[in-house]
Amino acid sequence: MIKKEDRKWNSLSDNTSSRLKRVKETLNPSGKIIQEKDAVRFLEAVIEPYDRVCIEGDNQKQASFLAKALSRVDPQKIHDLHMVQSVVALPEHLDVFRRKIATKLDFSYSGPQSKELADMVIKKELEIGAIHTYIELFGRCFLDLTPRVALVAANCADSHGNLYTGPNTEETPTLVEATKFKKGIIIAQVNSIEEKLPRVDIPGDWVDYVIPTDTPYYIEPLFTRDPAKISDVSVLMAMMAIKGIYGPYGITSLNHGIGYDTAAIELLLPTYAKELGLKGKICTHWALNPHPTMIPAIESGFVESIHPFGSEIGMEEYIEKRSDIFPVGPDGTMRSNRTFSQVAGHYAVDMFIGSTLQIDPYGNSSTATIQRISGFGGAPNMGCNAGGRRHFSAAWGKVGENYAINSLLNGPVPTGKKLVVQIVQSCKKPENPTFVEKLDAWELAERVNFPIPPVMIYGRDLTHIVTDIGVAYLYRCKNLEERKAAICSIAGKAPLGSLVDENTVAKMRDKKLVQYPEDLDINVKDATRDLLAAKSMEDLVEWSGGLYKPPARFMKK
Amino acid sequence: MIKKEDRKWNSLSDNTSSRLKRVKETLNPSGKIIQEKDAVRFLEAVIEPYDRVCIEGDNQKQASFLAKALSRVDPQKIHDLHMVQSVVALPEHLDVFRRKIATKLDFSYSGPQSKELADMVIKKELEIGAIHTYIELFGRCFLDLTPRVALVAANCADSHGNLYTGPNTEETPTLVEATKFKKGIIIAQVNSIEEKLPRVDIPGDWVDYVIPTDTPYYIEPLFTRDPAKISDVSVLMAMMAIKGIYGPYGITSLNHGIGYDTAAIELLLPTYAKELGLKGKICTHWALNPHPTMIPAIESGFVESIHPFGSEIGMEEYIEKRSDIFPVGPDGTMRSNRTFSQVAGHYAVDMFIGSTLQIDPYGNSSTATIQRISGFGGAPNMGCNAGGRRHFSAAWGKVGENYAINSLLNGPVPTGKKLVVQIVQSCKKPENPTFVEKLDAWELAERVNFPIPPVMIYGRDLTHIVTDIGVAYLYRCKNLEERKAAICSIAGKAPLGSLVDENTVAKMRDKKLVQYPEDLDINVKDATRDLLAAKSMEDLVEWSGGLYKPPARFMKK
Repeated sequence: MIKKEDRKWNSLSDNTSSRLKRVKETLNPSGKIIQEKDAVRFLEAVIEPYDRVCIEGDNQKQASFLAKALSRVDPQKIHDLHMVQSVVALPEHLDVFRRKIATKLDFSYSGPQSKELADMVIKKELEIGAIHTYIELFGRCFLDLTPRVALVAANCADSHGNLYTGPNTEETPTLVEATKFKKGIIIAQVNSIEEKLPRVDIPGDWVDYVIPTDTPYYIEPLFTRDPAKISDVSVLMAMMAIKGIYGPYGITSLNHGIGYDTAAIELLLPTYAKELGLKGKICTHWALNPHPTMIPAIESGFVESIHPFGSEIGMEEYIEKRSDIFPVGPDGTMRSNRTFSQVAGHYAVDMFIGSTLQIDPYGNSSTATIQRISGFGGAPNMGCNAGGRRHFSAAWGKVGENYAINSLLNGPVPTGKKLVVQIVQSCKKPENPTFVEKLDAWELAERVNFPIPPVMIYGRDLTHIVTDIGVAYLYRCKNLEERKAAICSIAGKAPLGSLVDENTVAKMRDKKLVQYPEDLDINVKDATRDLLAAKSMEDLVEWSGGLYKPPARFMKK
Repeated sequence: MIKKEDRKWNSLSDNTSSRLKRVKETLNPSGKIIQEKDAVRFLEAVIEPYDRVCIEGDNQKQASFLAKALSRVDPQKIHDLHMVQSVVALPEHLDVFRRKIATKLDFSYSGPQSKELADMVIKKELEIGAIHTYIELFGRCFLDLTPRVALVAANCADSHGNLYTGPNTEETPTLVEATKFKKGIIIAQVNSIEEKLPRVDIPGDWVDYVIPTDTPYYIEPLFTRDPAKISDVSVLMAMMAIKGIYGPYGITSLNHGIGYDTAAIELLLPTYAKELGLKGKICTHWALNPHPTMIPAIESGFVESIHPFGSEIGMEEYIEKRSDIFPVGPDGTMRSNRTFSQVAGHYAVDMFIGSTLQIDPYGNSSTATIQRISGFGGAPNMGCNAGGRRHFSAAWGKVGENYAINSLLNGPVPTGKKLVVQIVQSCKKPENPTFVEKLDAWELAERVNFPIPPVMIYGRDLTHIVTDIGVAYLYRCKNLEERKAAICSIAGKAPLGSLVDENTVAKMRDKKLVQYPEDLDINVKDATRDLLAAKSMEDLVEWSGGLYKPPARFMKK
C-alpha cells in the first residue's frame, strides 16, 4: 500500500484551543462575554498573523465596532491578514491595510470606499484577490477562502451566545456557518445582552464570544429613494420598461436594482401598469430589499411575496404588519437572508433590471471606472442567465425561443433565458457618457494588474437595454453587428449614438430590435411625475398608513 | 390617492393559528411533542386541502415516517396537495398521488421511483410542475413555491423543539427557514428526544412539532462505490481524465458526480496522478459528499478541504477524526449543507465531472429516457458555466481564453469558463448507446407534455467529454459542425461513431480537438485495476485505519 501522509488531522482544532486559552489567560472573561474596553487586547489574543479574517460588512448592517477595534490592533502582533468580506464600506475597512494589519482583500462591493480602494491598490498598499458577486464569495467561504475568525454583528445575544439578528439577518448565518464548522472563531458585537431573545437566529453553540457595545452597529438605509427626486425622464423610461418588457413578457418574478429609474417603475405599478390591465399579471413575486417605494404597489395589491436580502431602516413596523408579503418570524420581526435571496434572484426570477455606469457596443457593462473599484454586489449573480435553471415560465420560454444564437450553442435543442435588462439614461452627464467604445474597466485592469477587465454584466447575458431614447431587444440580434446597431440606436447623444445613420435606425425599429416610444404607443408628453403613485416621502408614509417611519434625513425639516 | 387594496395582510398567520388550534382540540399534545401513533390524525388536523407540502427527501436522508403517515391520511379530508420536495425516492412519495391526496409535484430527482413516476404522469395520476436542480427548487421555496407545511427529519430534538441534524443536515435548515418565516408549519420526525442535544442545528422556536419515532429515519449510502467493481475501462478513462484534463488545466477545485468512472479517478490520485507529479497541483478543494473512495486520496495528502452536501453512512468516525478536511462542529460531528455545497459547486469550483445516459451530436445530454423521469439533482447547477462568476483562476481563465465562440457572445471582452466534463463509456450496452442522434428527452417531453425536452446539461456548457476512445475538447470547436465531428470521433461503436471517417478523426486529433490515449502518451495496456489505490472495500477500511465502517451489505460475508 502507498505511504500515508504523516500529518496531523486536527490541527485547526488544536490551534483554536490554543487561541481560546490565550484569551482566557489575557482577559479571563466570564463565559462568552467580552467587555467593550477589552476589545483590542482581545482581538490581539485571538487573531494570528496571516489569518483569513471576515469582518461582516453587508451592504446595510456593519460590524462597525469590531471593524474599528481591528483597525487598532498592534501591527507588530497582528499582520498580513487576508480580509474576506462582502463589503468595504467603512474607513476602518481600509485602515487595516493602511496600518499594515492586513495585506490582501477578497470582496464583493465597495460603494463609498471605491475611490480610496483604487488609490491604495495602485499604491500597492493592498492586494485584491478578486472581486466577487456576493454568493460567489459565500461559496468560496465554504471551499477555499474559509475565514479563521469571523467578526459579525447582531441585535442582541443571551449569555449562552445565542444571537438575534432580527430583520437585518443578511449574511450573518452564512458567514458563521462557514467559519465555525471549520473550527474558526465567531465573535459577535451586539447592541445588548438580553435574558430572553425575541427568537434565536444563530444557535449559541456556534458562537464563541459576544461583545456588547455602547453604540449600536452602523446601518445604512441604502434602498430608500425619495420619490421627489424622480425625474420625468425616469418616468418615461419606466413607461417603456413596463409597456415594452414587463407587459409583453408577463414578468411575474423579478429583482430590481437600486436607483431612481427602477423606483419610478415601482411607483408606476399602481397607476400606469394598472391602467394597462397588468395588475395580477406582472410583478407578483420579488427577490428584493424592502424598498419604501414598493409600498404603493403592495398596498394596491400588485405584490404577493417579497424575499429580502436585508431590511431597510424605517420599514420594520410596516413589514411586521404585512406578514403575508414578507418573511416574518414567530416573534413578529422579519428574517432576511442574503444567500437565499440571491439564490432566488439567480434561479427563481424571470428578470433582473438594474443600472450601470458604462455599456460598450457589445452590451458588456461595468461600474468599475478608472478611478473607482466599486465591485458589483449582487448584479453579476442576478444579472446573468441561470445556466442551471430547468423550470419553465412564459417569460423565460419566450426569450429562449427568440434567442437568435441559441442554435449556435445547443443545436436544435430549445431552452429558456432570463431577462437581464439595463435601464440607463443615454447621456446623463455629457462628460461621462453611458455608452462608450471601450469600457474603462480595461484600463483599470491594466493599472491594477487584474488578469481580465472587471465586467459587471457580460454581453452574452444582457437581453434588453432601456434608455430615454428607446428599448433594444438584444437577444434577438443574430450577430454582433446587429447587436451593436441596436445599442447605437438607443445611445442618443453618447458617442455611440453617432455611429448609426437614420436608415439603420429605421431598419432596427422595423425589425423590432429597437422600439422607440412611438413604436410602443407611448406619448412622451404623458411621461410626467404626475403618473407616480407617490411623489414624496410623505406620500409613502401616507400610503403605509403611518407604518413606514423614514429616517429623519429623508424628511423635510 | 389611488384606492388601496381592501384585504387582510396577515391571513397566513391567522390561518396558521387556526391549524394549531385544531391540533390542540384534536390531540391536546403536551408541548411540541406528538406521539407516533397519533401521526395520521395529527396530519389531518394540521394540513388543509390544496396546501403546498414539502416532504424532506434528500438524496440520502428521508423523512420516511412522515412520508408514510402522509400517505395514510383520509383523501376525503386532505386532497389536492401540491408536493414540493427535492427527491421522490420512497414508494410512499408516489402513494400520496395514487391515493389522490396530492395532485401536483415539483421536484429535483427521482432515482429509484423514476419509472413509476413516468408511468403515473402518462396515466395523468399526477401533474409535474417542473423538474429542478436542487438549489433552483430551494430558491423557489423562498419565492413562489413556499411550502405551507414542511415535514422534515432530524436525529434528535429536545423538549423545546431544538433540532440536531448531525452529519446529515443536508437541506433541513433551508426548508425550515423557507417555510417557517412565511408562517408555515414545521413538523420534524426525530429518532429520539434528548434532554441535551450535541449541538443545535435548527433553533427550537423555528419548529412547531416533533414526533419521536421507533424506527430511525431512512438513509441511503448513495455515494459508496465498491472498488472491486471498477473495470479496466474505467481506469483507462480515469487516466485520460487526469492526464488530459486535471493535469494540464491544473484543476484544484471541483465536484465529482457519482459513478465508477469518477471513483476510479479518486483511486488513481495517490498512484497515477502522484507519479505524474500532480500532488498539491490538483484536487485540493472539493464540493463533494464524503465518498469512501476519497479516503486514499485524503490519507496520501492530496486533499485540503471537502464541503459536503450530505454525509455517507459509515464515514462518520473517519470524518470526525479528519476535522481539518471536513466541516466538523464543536460537538465533534460534521454539519453538511446541501445549499451551501451547491453554491460552492456552482461558483467556487473550476470543474464538474459526471456521467449521463445519452449525449447528442451537439453535446446536449440527459438522463431522462422514454421510460424514466429521473430528474437531475445537482448536475444542472454544477454542470453549467457560472455566468455570475468573477474571480479568476488558471483553469477557468485557460478555458475562457480558448473558448472559440466567446467573441460571438461578448465581443472582444475576455472572460473565463467552468470546465464541465462528461465521462462515459462510448457503448456500455450496444442496445443503449450513449451517443445518439436525438435525445429520448424529446419523445418523453411530447408524451408527458413538457414545454421543452428535459436536458440535464446543455451543449453550451459542456467543455469536454471523456470516453474509452479519447477526450474531446468541445469548447475549442469553432462551430457546431466541428463540435459534432469531435463528438463523433470519440463515440466509438455508438451510431454517431460511424458518422466520421478516418480523415476527419485525424484532422480532429491534429487540431487537438480530440486526443486519443496515444496522443496523451497513455499506453492502453497500462490501464489496469493494478493502478487503483484500493481494490476493495477492505482496502478502503484499511486506508482509513479502521475508522471507516461500511454498511454490512458492502462487505463480504
